[in-house]
Amino acid sequence: MARIDGARLIGDLRELAGFGRYRTGVHRPAFSDADLAARHWLARRMAEAGLDAGIDGIGNVIGRAPGDGPRLLVGSHSDTQPQGGWLDGAMGVVYGIELARAMRDDPGCRGIGVDVASWQDEEGHYANFLGSRSFAGFLDDAEIDRARHRDDGTPLRDAIARAGLAGTPRARLDASRYRGYLEAHIEQGAVLELDQRRIGVVTAIVGILVYRVTFVGERNHAGTTPMRMRKDAGVALTAFCNEVHREFKALAGSVTVWTIGRIVLEPNAPSVVPGRAELLLQIRDPSLATMERLGAAAIGLAEAADRTGPCRIAIERTSCTEPVAMHEPFQAAIAAAAERRAGRDWMRLVSGAGHDAQILARQMPAGMLFVPSIGGISHHYTEDTAEDDLVLGCQTFADAAEAILRS
Amino acid sequence: MARIDGARLIGDLRELAGFGRYRTGVHRPAFSDADLAARHWLARRMAEAGLDAGIDGIGNVIGRAPGDGPRLLVGSHSDTQPQGGWLDGAMGVVYGIELARAMRDDPGCRGIGVDVASWQDEEGHYANFLGSRSFAGFLDDAEIDRARHRDDGTPLRDAIARAGLAGTPRARLDASRYRGYLEAHIEQGAVLELDQRRIGVVTAIVGILVYRVTFVGERNHAGTTPMRMRKDAGVALTAFCNEVHREFKALAGSVTVWTIGRIVLEPNAPSVVPGRAELLLQIRDPSLATMERLGAAAIGLAEAADRTGPCRIAIERTSCTEPVAMHEPFQAAIAAAAERRAGRDWMRLVSGAGHDAQILARQMPAGMLFVPSIGGISHHYTEDTAEDDLVLGCQTFADAAEAILRS
Repeated sequence: MARIDGARLIGDLRELAGFGRYRTGVHRPAFSDADLAARHWLARRMAEAGLDAGIDGIGNVIGRAPGDGPRLLVGSHSDTQPQGGWLDGAMGVVYGIELARAMRDDPGCRGIGVDVASWQDEEGHYANFLGSRSFAGFLDDAEIDRARHRDDGTPLRDAIARAGLAGTPRARLDASRYRGYLEAHIEQGAVLELDQRRIGVVTAIVGILVYRVTFVGERNHAGTTPMRMRKDAGVALTAFCNEVHREFKALAGSVTVWTIGRIVLEPNAPSVVPGRAELLLQIRDPSLATMERLGAAAIGLAEAADRTGPCRIAIERTSCTEPVAMHEPFQAAIAAAAERRAGRDWMRLVSGAGHDAQILARQMPAGMLFVPSIGGISHHYTEDTAEDDLVLGCQTFADAAEAILRS
Repeated sequence: MARIDGARLIGDLRELAGFGRYRTGVHRPAFSDADLAARHWLARRMAEAGLDAGIDGIGNVIGRAPGDGPRLLVGSHSDTQPQGGWLDGAMGVVYGIELARAMRDDPGCRGIGVDVASWQDEEGHYANFLGSRSFAGFLDDAEIDRARHRDDGTPLRDAIARAGLAGTPRARLDASRYRGYLEAHIEQGAVLELDQRRIGVVTAIVGILVYRVTFVGERNHAGTTPMRMRKDAGVALTAFCNEVHREFKALAGSVTVWTIGRIVLEPNAPSVVPGRAELLLQIRDPSLATMERLGAAAIGLAEAADRTGPCRIAIERTSCTEPVAMHEPFQAAIAAAAERRAGRDWMRLVSGAGHDAQILARQMPAGMLFVPSIGGISHHYTEDTAEDDLVLGCQTFADAAEAILRS
């Protein structure tokens, strides 16, 4: 078995965190100066690891192993949320580089190898899973032409040109080259920590179903409009929220989560009866049937409230990402490696967050390994993982990859 | 009885609406160019009506009747909300001018008279009831030094200087000069219209009690945080809203109104469990005891929810304006005039909105007359009142004023 070098791994993670450092975390959104500098650094590190590395026309860094033997594609993303954590996707990319080095240095690994990728813009500043969708064949030029930065409106084409990548071809997956795709990531939740586990074997990436619910009442003066005359869109909204929470509790599966994370009242002024209100309701589950069951309940509640009045209520499905199961033999390989390296301190769990693996899984077998997030914190500069867990996770990941390649 | 001239009244209202015209309404915030031009126009109109008129150091336009007989102070405000209505406070000011003209032209009114005022910034762009508080003695120089425009931050002192009023003294009330204060205003609600009444006799101006309720939970990833681990500040907020509405219905008086007009979730993103949430709860009633009863219930609900968890809930009283009763003999005089001019088409009602009269009422007897608002609309450019109602309201107002002056 190829042995990873823990000190080298941690050293590279720390060095990569220097690109866009923000307090104890990293501010490195896709196509920012820090992101581009980090991608060039990653390409150099991949080349030093013996890979044929470059940056493609959408900003993906891809390093290819020499030779023709069995290959696994491994990776994650090095772009971050604003003021995000130092590990997040970066960890999975550096795991890939460390794995490539460990296999290069192990004579027993001659003939097998890994290609390593850092996908661009997993965090969706321009478009969700931009790089992995491009590589897997789910991104056309028309979408690139349309895409703009979600905050400042910069066209994606301008960002690509500014990165010196205009005219550079986009790399495309040749699925026949690979046994499949493996990705390591921090959990971004507290399930492993609370269960005192050091390795997570991902069984599925949940689907995400989102509804926009709109409440239309009558905007009125909060002093001069008697209660009996009101059509308060805020009252209708808060009543709907409570019914959703009550009904969903009865309908949910064991790992279902649902969130009303966004509420907007109009005009949102203390002395005005809200005339319009809106919320976003998000449902996540590894089972599409469960997601649809809850969605149907939400629609039923909205329609009933609309009939009752006094406000008009409309509900629309704004997006639905289907759940993706991880490849069973890959789960078994990661589980076996975890059992060897961590004893009983591992568990199977679903990923409640989205990952590039869900895109690659549409083209080839895919698997994921999680390491614990301290306090479950992610998408925040205080996100962290114990160094021992980082090293253990990488060795487990390497063992699993090698086992898959030899299988 | 002095007879008002309906055509002259409507003509002046239409001409005044030309200052800052916005669609069918007016955009004339305090100290804007349109507001200052309107104030100079009002001062000229007051002078033409035989009053000794000028603009004081805070922007109030005040016209004083000649002679020494019994006097009433009448008026309202000519500043408006952004993109507001053409009548709102402007109507009460023009009623005052028309009343001054009608009394000047009526030989029977020799020896009695009205002073007319347009108070500055009733709408509170710099500070609520700025002009009437200055006149009534509830505004000190320190507050003027501190006050800034609520949107653009312009210091009030700069606005006063720009208006050419730096160094101009602020007019101060000599209560011994007046029998009291009378103000006419549009209702700003739909009570008169729905009851098919043309004149409203205001019995009281409601008090306003405001609470800020803060919910502190734990901000988390909406995908990776199982339901059992969540401390969702949004869930706590919507549950509290529903309990307030349920409990208040049982405790409210016949004219009590309460409003949760402002809700803020943090970070208000669809994929983040809200870590913090806040609402403003406003209670209005003509009885302070009723206001306090509802306030105590809100505090009880917040404390109970805080004990239950999982979120921490804090409630604080951010402001309390006490209700103000209108002077009974003034109510009787307006009611008698309404009975004469409108037959049965008048009613007593409370004012759910604040008015300059509540400030003047702290120094002398005060009364208010309402005319109907079409559709109950106010603080919007579509606000309107039927011309017949405007003329009827002014004549009723004149009759009531004359009766009070002769009493």
